[in-house]
Amino acid sequence: MNTDQFPNFEGPVCPLPFDHAEQIVISHGSGGRQTHDLIRKVFHNHFSNPALDAGNDSAILHLSAQMPGKIAVSTDAHIVSPYFFPGGDIGKLAVCGTVNDVSMSGAVPRYLTASFILEEGFPIRDLEKIVLSMEATAKEAEVEIVAGDTKVVQKGKGDGIFISTTGIGWLPLDRRIGGEQARAGDIVILSGTIGEHGLAVLAARGELGFTADLRSDVAPLNHMIQTVLEAAPDIHVLRDPTRGGVATTLNEIASQSGVNIFLEEDQIPIIPQVHAVCEMLGFDPLYIANEGKVIVICPPSSVKRVLEALHAQKYGQNARVIGEVRAAPAGKVLLRTLIAGTRILDTLSGEMLPRIC
Amino acid sequence: MNTDQFPNFEGPVCPLPFDHAEQIVISHGSGGRQTHDLIRKVFHNHFSNPALDAGNDSAILHLSAQMPGKIAVSTDAHIVSPYFFPGGDIGKLAVCGTVNDVSMSGAVPRYLTASFILEEGFPIRDLEKIVLSMEATAKEAEVEIVAGDTKVVQKGKGDGIFISTTGIGWLPLDRRIGGEQARAGDIVILSGTIGEHGLAVLAARGELGFTADLRSDVAPLNHMIQTVLEAAPDIHVLRDPTRGGVATTLNEIASQSGVNIFLEEDQIPIIPQVHAVCEMLGFDPLYIANEGKVIVICPPSSVKRVLEALHAQKYGQNARVIGEVRAAPAGKVLLRTLIAGTRILDTLSGEMLPRIC
Repeated sequence: MNTDQFPNFEGPVCPLPFDHAEQIVISHGSGGRQTHDLIRKVFHNHFSNPALDAGNDSAILHLSAQMPGKIAVSTDAHIVSPYFFPGGDIGKLAVCGTVNDVSMSGAVPRYLTASFILEEGFPIRDLEKIVLSMEATAKEAEVEIVAGDTKVVQKGKGDGIFISTTGIGWLPLDRRIGGEQARAGDIVILSGTIGEHGLAVLAARGELGFTADLRSDVAPLNHMIQTVLEAAPDIHVLRDPTRGGVATTLNEIASQSGVNIFLEEDQIPIIPQVHAVCEMLGFDPLYIANEGKVIVICPPSSVKRVLEALHAQKYGQNARVIGEVRAAPAGKVLLRTLIAGTRILDTLSGEMLPRIC
Repeated sequence: MNTDQFPNFEGPVCPLPFDHAEQIVISHGSGGRQTHDLIRKVFHNHFSNPALDAGNDSAILHLSAQMPGKIAVSTDAHIVSPYFFPGGDIGKLAVCGTVNDVSMSGAVPRYLTASFILEEGFPIRDLEKIVLSMEATAKEAEVEIVAGDTKVVQKGKGDGIFISTTGIGWLPLDRRIGGEQARAGDIVILSGTIGEHGLAVLAARGELGFTADLRSDVAPLNHMIQTVLEAAPDIHVLRDPTRGGVATTLNEIASQSGVNIFLEEDQIPIIPQVHAVCEMLGFDPLYIANEGKVIVICPPSSVKRVLEALHAQKYGQNARVIGEVRAAPAGKVLLRTLIAGTRILDTLSGEMLPRIC
């Protein structure tokens, strides 16, 4: 806290430099509590409006009285390093991340925009590989990239390539899906194994200190989600556990809906490689980013149809129930651990592991 | 050219390193010929679709058969240095740039998304000033910022702040405005004086070598454009002469419409400070970026109504006719100079002046 701005502040003198809190730090981008604080204090403070304040992965909008219906819009900046990693690259990530965010409202993503910030000296051959990957992923997702922009920054003023994408989808008028729709009694389903994306990127950086056979799960989930919605139209929440992982995502939902989410650790699907790496390095897979998974929260009566629909899709074969929604303690996520204790799964305030996206 | 990829290439041996052409260089971001080449060869090659290929400032889209009407979408990455400059800042620029691009289709901009890439160490006080400026500009333009994203890059991997914005607008069904609509006989109107934005940013960098009393013209033009469209619904082209200036923008239109554009140099409004700086440094104001001007191309019968509507608005008081559209030579822009000669105003292939946006 800068006491210049608060002349009446009479708390203890802080031993850290005052300006620490006045600068952007890496953990402002972690997706955890510091990110939320920054967004709440700086952005929501000035940009407040109902669509933004809803706090979901995409904004739901009306365009004109002369144009009935709603659209869903989402935007993301992609900054992954290295930009090629096992299972994907920054281009695939930029398409999937935004396609998936639009899909989480129940909307059908139709169009993407892409803006590129390239660093002087970036190899055009790499740019072509990335663009080719975006093309292939957009084709799989059946979305069109309809507008773009390219800027070039001087060498040393960027990090190779940054891609910001915005997705636009059409939302059927009767869809009411969002982080605020979870109800006590609902069931929490996860579409597959967790932790692969985050660890695959760390491994590609050589930061694990050993080699690990890991591939990112990055994938466009829109077709799978539409199939699930056809099977079970009464789904309450859809959310992809990206930055901050399953734990952070469920905390957001618990807070938006004012409910408790209770997880069973032994039900959470994790591949052996992820388990082994997390054990060795002391990471919690529940906080590691995924780019091809979805959390589905629905009434108990829909669980069977949701699971059947997920299991029939290539990106949902390991789907399972991982927990349930309870009334209290509201706003918290609890985990029944393997040794049968219960612990609070909090939102991280800073960084558990090096930033990967 | 990399001869590895073209084993049969038998041209002269290039004295420059082969990989020069294989890397991103600053002029790929200039808005000139190298930018167009990169976009055509790398992006359009893979992302081709009718909305993108139209090559206008915003893409025109249909969302669903169940949702009649069209929307206009545009995206831009903003990377200006310094991020505060006389007359504006990167936040105002990020809102105006995208609001204006959406408006150039005749659409009414309604919503913006904003994604921020912040460099570690960026002062939060500066971020707040920038966000405040975005708020004020969005309020003036009557658009809402409905979705956002924040990423943080390590110190040395960015340049303080980059902001990518995407704008979405509603397009009345009967609007047919675009760079391909210019017809021989049409009149070219410019809404005001040129060159202030580019030179104000250069001056703020201290790169002019002397002080100059210059302010950026950055402004949201959507209300002015709607007023002009009400006065003259038969406008053919609207385009804002940003990166690359009036000359580059008119070359794009000449090429899209397959027409010639003939300008009268003595009719182009330039303030004395811009004129003086350009004289001293050998810059051509026709290639300098503007952020609050619009080029209107319309049939002769609408000129009086367009000018009256522009003159009644605060951002259009210096509007005037600067030229006309002719049939030949198609795809070229010609300028009758002050000394009564005629010269071709070509698209720059590289950089005339240091990059400012």
